[in-house]
Parts: sequence; structure tokens; C-alpha cells
Amino acid sequence: MAKQTIGIPRGTRDFLPNEMIGRNFIFNIIRSTFEQFGYLPIETPSMENLSTLMGKYGEEGDRLVFKVLNSGDFTPDIDLNESPTKIASRICEKGLRYDLTVPFARFVVQHQNELTFPFKRYQMQPVWRADRPQKGRYREFYQCDADIIGSNSLLNEVELIHMIDTVFQKLNMEVCVLFNNRKILSGIAQYIGYEDKIVDITVAIDKMEKIGLVKVCEELQEKGIEMSAIEKLKPILLLEGDNHTKINTLKEILKGIPEGEKGIEECISILSYIEDEHLTPHCEVNLDLTLARGLNYYTGSIFEVKSKQIPIGSITGGGRYDNLTGIFGLDNMSGVGISFGVERIFDIWRELNQNQTIQSPVTIFFVNFGVKEERYCLQALNLLRKNGIGAEIYPEAVKLQKQIKYADSKQIPFVVLAGEDEMTQQKFTVKDMKAHTQMSVSLDELLNLGKIK
Amino acid sequence: MAKQTIGIPRGTRDFLPNEMIGRNFIFNIIRSTFEQFGYLPIETPSMENLSTLMGKYGEEGDRLVFKVLNSGDFTPDIDLNESPTKIASRICEKGLRYDLTVPFARFVVQHQNELTFPFKRYQMQPVWRADRPQKGRYREFYQCDADIIGSNSLLNEVELIHMIDTVFQKLNMEVCVLFNNRKILSGIAQYIGYEDKIVDITVAIDKMEKIGLVKVCEELQEKGIEMSAIEKLKPILLLEGDNHTKINTLKEILKGIPEGEKGIEECISILSYIEDEHLTPHCEVNLDLTLARGLNYYTGSIFEVKSKQIPIGSITGGGRYDNLTGIFGLDNMSGVGISFGVERIFDIWRELNQNQTIQSPVTIFFVNFGVKEERYCLQALNLLRKNGIGAEIYPEAVKLQKQIKYADSKQIPFVVLAGEDEMTQQKFTVKDMKAHTQMSVSLDELLNLGKIK
Repeated sequence: MAKQTIGIPRGTRDFLPNEMIGRNFIFNIIRSTFEQFGYLPIETPSMENLSTLMGKYGEEGDRLVFKVLNSGDFTPDIDLNESPTKIASRICEKGLRYDLTVPFARFVVQHQNELTFPFKRYQMQPVWRADRPQKGRYREFYQCDADIIGSNSLLNEVELIHMIDTVFQKLNMEVCVLFNNRKILSGIAQYIGYEDKIVDITVAIDKMEKIGLVKVCEELQEKGIEMSAIEKLKPILLLEGDNHTKINTLKEILKGIPEGEKGIEECISILSYIEDEHLTPHCEVNLDLTLARGLNYYTGSIFEVKSKQIPIGSITGGGRYDNLTGIFGLDNMSGVGISFGVERIFDIWRELNQNQTIQSPVTIFFVNFGVKEERYCLQALNLLRKNGIGAEIYPEAVKLQKQIKYADSKQIPFVVLAGEDEMTQQKFTVKDMKAHTQMSVSLDELLNLGKIK
Repeated sequence: MAKQTIGIPRGTRDFLPNEMIGRNFIFNIIRSTFEQFGYLPIETPSMENLSTLMGKYGEEGDRLVFKVLNSGDFTPDIDLNESPTKIASRICEKGLRYDLTVPFARFVVQHQNELTFPFKRYQMQPVWRADRPQKGRYREFYQCDADIIGSNSLLNEVELIHMIDTVFQKLNMEVCVLFNNRKILSGIAQYIGYEDKIVDITVAIDKMEKIGLVKVCEELQEKGIEMSAIEKLKPILLLEGDNHTKINTLKEILKGIPEGEKGIEECISILSYIEDEHLTPHCEVNLDLTLARGLNYYTGSIFEVKSKQIPIGSITGGGRYDNLTGIFGLDNMSGVGISFGVERIFDIWRELNQNQTIQSPVTIFFVNFGVKEERYCLQALNLLRKNGIGAEIYPEAVKLQKQIKYADSKQIPFVVLAGEDEMTQQKFTVKDMKAHTQMSVSLDELLNLGKIK
């Protein structure tokens, strides 16, 4: 067969071992933290029916769902007089999942009789979006979500903050958790007299950090909000001080607006937990009234996490939704969840740990000097592996230099050299690759060396 | 919005927590064994260019590749006078990967300058096939592959046998490894005078176990092989006895056929390792001359693993290929690999361990009796989690029975009840859910309880 050009689709990635080891390190920390907090794993199919996905992410989102061509002869379903969207919907029944939230909602409704509520689940799987690829934006990327559904308690919000805190402490990353409440934003919209424009207001406020106050005000004006209302809004967006200073000012402003008062009450309740000396997280937790988060399904608390070391935008986000499962026919299921932005977390982690090598799972490497030596080493290798120690031998008796280079490229800490002398003495010469030292050990000592590392 | 019917595409699955915990248990054993043996993780994109996938799996395989519709307006590329296959190739550039082997070959060629050879990699990701769904056959399923590429040494084959042995020992499953060699099959084809029909012969022999000798012979006849040749083949397929009895007979039969002799030599060499008393695997390893394995890229050793407890066909398979990367432009790269059939392994494992519950990652559950008790428990909960212990509290002070039911459904071993008395005495009442006993412990003792489990 003819040779062919090789490559992968735009916006997708191959992960080489070094990247994978780093990514798995992060995934494992997130996974074990989720489990420690009582969240249980689930998985949903990569492909969902398009009827499940379409109409859930707005018009733009619908366009960005990858559609999978029906098997068999699809051509009779093509009517070229119809629009491309219509034709696509006739020749494609399935699409690749766009996020983990809508499949989770579908899952909860479909399996409601098999689950015990409140249901705490986590899910770590790739999602696909036909977005224009650019730096840091991919067409295939992982999401790591944890949600608890079927409980109104604010203790869940507190737990999520603690979970965020645990993950980033384990990753040795300094972060700040920002929080706000959709009910407060709603109260503010009422306060400035534009309750009906809550979506426009949220969308504009959400851009504060990116485009600044002046442009946010311009956008609000364009959306038909009067200058007098914008002037009332400004000081709220510019509120400074600690959480309680802000809350006390807000209390005055939103007095008599029940929804706003409810939002303040919720924030106070969450703070009362995390200000308890036994429950204080390691990271800062700050009320940020400009935090809005675009997604429309949030109805209560909203969160965002930012790195204090590398400014790269939000690295984790989430919030409470009161009716996520409603579209699939299950009402009154309040839930709250967070999603770790692993791709960005990995970028930050890698930048902060450039010089740090991750421990190789293999501790001991045997040089292969030939038939007899190989057999001598294999017995030791086998024993090491039976004791759970990562070990390997070079499969052929090639030049020593080549074998050492191989061990080095895999960052294996100990290299064993065993020739005629070692075999006679029933010993092994071990080279410590970092310390550049060498020692002669017995099989038992070799075993201990592997166990210590 | 209107409610909608819910479901998932045919042949795909949702995994609920109990299944996930079992699956993760198996995946973790396979992953840690791969790593212990020096195999490194990689991942490739779910979508590959169709040019990478098509023509690699035969005509049937091409049909079974899921194709992803191009984004944007694809309709100008439709010419309804063309065949459905042609139209599909115009409106779809990408497809979902069909296995992990072809993407791995593409990966090795594309990244050859970033890798150190011999390159040992493992990969555990889902694959997709538009097969007709039936019991035990899915349209999305995981593959777990380990390969070493860039080494001719038969020690690699021995290592793979040891790896198989380790995985199934850890899973507590009794298995038998069957092996054969394509060079022996080739020698046999020459011996019966049909070297040119090696593919037909392989395909027919591969069905021995399923359809029996009589039907295999019928198929061989249909393929144009004379009765006299079939009569020469029969006794070879019916050879009985231990590995060396078979090999000695074969040696006689294939004398003077260099390829056959080479195959026998390879088998002897592999056996010489695993018959070494220090290197003998726990499982049986049997030469099976009827083992052929359908895939055409194998050129040397071939393996298959079967359960000795539950007859369900092959649960792991693999072999050596001399030119897998050739199609992508990299020649002379011999490799050998195995693929664990995790879906079947999971089915067997579940059947064998029906009554065994897997340890919940959460050890301690706190009942929520109200505001004051909750705060008392949260301090303990926080301390437990800081010590790496899995623990949770019910988020609301609902009826005790409901909370106990929740803890039970998650198989949490210890339930903590802390009310007025416990708070006064700075104690915790702990219910052992399995032993149905109850005890009063201090915070330190609670911590130890969590650590022991």
C-alpha cells in the first residue's frame, strides 16, 4: 500500500507519556478527593441522541455539537431543498456529548428509581465541541464534574468549597474561591428597576474583569438600560472591603426586595460555616458581586476559582440549579455542582512544576548483558514484581550506553548491572542515577531498595 | 419547554456507581500492572482523520467506522449521483477510532523523534463500532492495550505472559494462556502444499473451537483445498499432549521448511523461559496449534487467554507484528502486544464475585441531627478528611431512618450518631453496620477507626 500523510484532526491532541503522567497525577488527586467526600463515579456514553443534546446550549451550542452520520444508506433522507441544519438532523441521529451536565440530567431522570437521593456523583470524561481551535481551546477535552442533586441544604455549597480547597492544596496551588448568588443579582436587577433584563445584566456584568466597568456600562446602555439605572448599579459593582462589609452595604441596598434578601441570607449562612475556626479552608473565599457566570440554569450560589499565581481566568466553576432535570420530566430536583477545568489546571501545574520530575512507576532497571546474565537478572526481576515493585529489563543485550539512555529517558532511579562477578558472589551492582553513586547489594537489599522508593 | 422522551443510542451504556466501582477496580489492576512492567501511558484523540482509519480493517471494518459530519455547510459537497460511501467520504473527514492499534501505529510514526525505542506503551480508552448490538457486544467499549515496539526479542513475549499472569492473579481468576506462532501456521500451509492459501487456512482454523473439525474441513474444501491436503492437516489440528510432545511431533512434520522451523524455535525459546523454576507463571501456558487469530497483521507469536471458570471465549489476545507502522511510512519496526478484553473480564469477575461488596471509599458517615449537632460533627468530619479518610455527613436533618438508608445504600461501614449526650462528653456513638454493634469513642479513636479500614 502507498504511504500516506499522517496527522490528527484540528483541535485534538495526542498525549505522550510525560504529559499523561502529569495529567494522571492531577486526575488522581481530583478523583480521590471526590471519592473521599462521598461522590460516586458514573459514566455516560460518548454519543447521545441528538434529541437529548439539541436546544440545551443555545443556538451557538447547537452548531458546535459534533454530529455522527447514521450507519447504512443515509442518502434517501437527503432532500437538497432543505436547509443544512435540517438535512443534518435527518442523516444524523446521534451527537458527541458537549458537556457532562446535560447527560447527567438525562441520566438522573432515566435512572431515578435506581438511585438513592440526595445523589452525589462525579464524572470525568472527555467532551467535544466543534469550536474554532485556538491556544488553550480544544475540540476534545476532559471535564471533571461533581454534583449533588436532590438536596436544598447550603451545607452542600460549603462541602464543595472544602473539596475545591482540598484539591488545590494537594496540587500545591494557591487559589482564591469567588462566590456570589443569582438571587442577589436578581435583587440588584429589581433594585435598579430592570427585573425583566436580568439576563442582559448578568451577561454584561460577567464581562467586568475582561472589558472593564466603562465597556460594561456601554453594553448595558445598548441593551436599553437607562443611565440613571446604570448609575445606581455602578457603586454596587465597585463595592470594596471584606465579605461582611460588602454584605452589610448590600443589606441596606436590597432591603425590601425579598429575592435579594434571600440571596444575602444564603451567603451569610455559607460564611458562618467557613468562618468557624474548625472549618476554615486554607484558600481565600471572597464574595464577588461582579461574578455572574453565563450559564442560565444557575438559580442560587455561583462559584469560580482563580489561580493566585498565574492569571489564566477561571480554573473551576459551578453553582446551584433548581430545575436542571425539568426538561427531561423530573421537577423539583435542586442540585449544586462544580466542574474542575483540568486542561487549564494542568497548564498552570506544569508551569509551576517545570523542574520537578514525577516519580517513575519503575524503580529498578536491569541492564541486559547476554543470555546467562539475563536469566540471573530475570529471577530477581520476577521477585521484585511479585512484591509489587515496578521493575524492567532491557529486552536485548545491546550496547550499555543505549540501555542506560533508555533507563534515563524513563527517569528510572536505580540501574542494576550484573555480570560474571556479581553472579559468582550472588550480588547486584546498583547505580543510583541521581546521586551518581554505586553500591553492591544482595537480592534482599535490592528488594528493600525497591520498597523504599 | 416540552418534556421529551429519554434514552441513549442503541448499543451504548450508562454505568451506575456500583458498576463503575467494579470496573474501576479492574481497570486499576490492569493499569498498575502495566506500569509496574514499565509500560507508559499515552492517549490519542477519539476522532481520527478518516484517511488514517479507512482501509485498515477490511471492507466490513470500513463500514463499521462511525463517521462524524463536517462542521459548517456540508451540503455543497453532496452529489446524489454518487454512492452513499462516496458521499459519506465527502461530507465526513473524521471518524471515531475503531481500535487502539491503528491509532498507536499512526502515533509512533508521527512522534518517532520524540520517543525512545523500544517503546513500551499502554492505552486504555473507548473505541466505537457501528456493529449490530447484541448481548455482550456494544457500539462503545473500552480496550486496554499494551505494546512494545522496536524490539525483536522474544523476552517481550515472555514478559507479556507474565503480565497476563499477574493481572489475572490479582483478579483472582483462573485462566489459561494459549499460544501459537504464525510462522508455524505458515509452515503447515507449505507442508500441505497450499502456501498461497495461508489466509484462507488461518481463517478456517480459527473457527475450530466454534464450529468443530468437520465444518472447518468443509470450509477448507470450499476454498479449493484438496482432500489429500486436508487429510495431511487433520492430525496436526488434532495433536494432543503437553507442549513438548506437540513440538517434537511438529519438528518432524516441518523438517526442511525453514519458516516452520523458525516458528518452532521461537516457541521453544519462549518455553525455556517460562519453564525456568524461578520464572514459571501461576497460570497454564499451552501451545494450541488451532489458535490462529483472525487479524492479518500478526507475523510471529500469537496469544489468547481463556477463563477456566466461565466459558465465554477469548478474554485477552495479542501477538507479534513485523510491519504495523509500514503503512504510515515507518518500516522495520517489529512489535508485540496484548489487549485485555475488559468488558468480558468484567462480566466474568462480576459473576464470580456476586456476593462480594467492594469497600466503599467512604468509611464514616455522620447522621445529621440539626444545627448544633451538625456543627459538632463537621469539626470531626473535617479532621477525618484532612487525614485522608473518606467521610461524609447527610446534608439535612431529615428522619434518622432515611439517613441510615442512605448510608446503607452506599455500603458505608460506620455510622456516627452524635446528640446532646455525646456533645457533652466529647464522644461519638459509632454503629458498625456489618457487625450490628455500637460503641462510644473519642475523636482520636474515631480517627483510628477510619484509618484502620
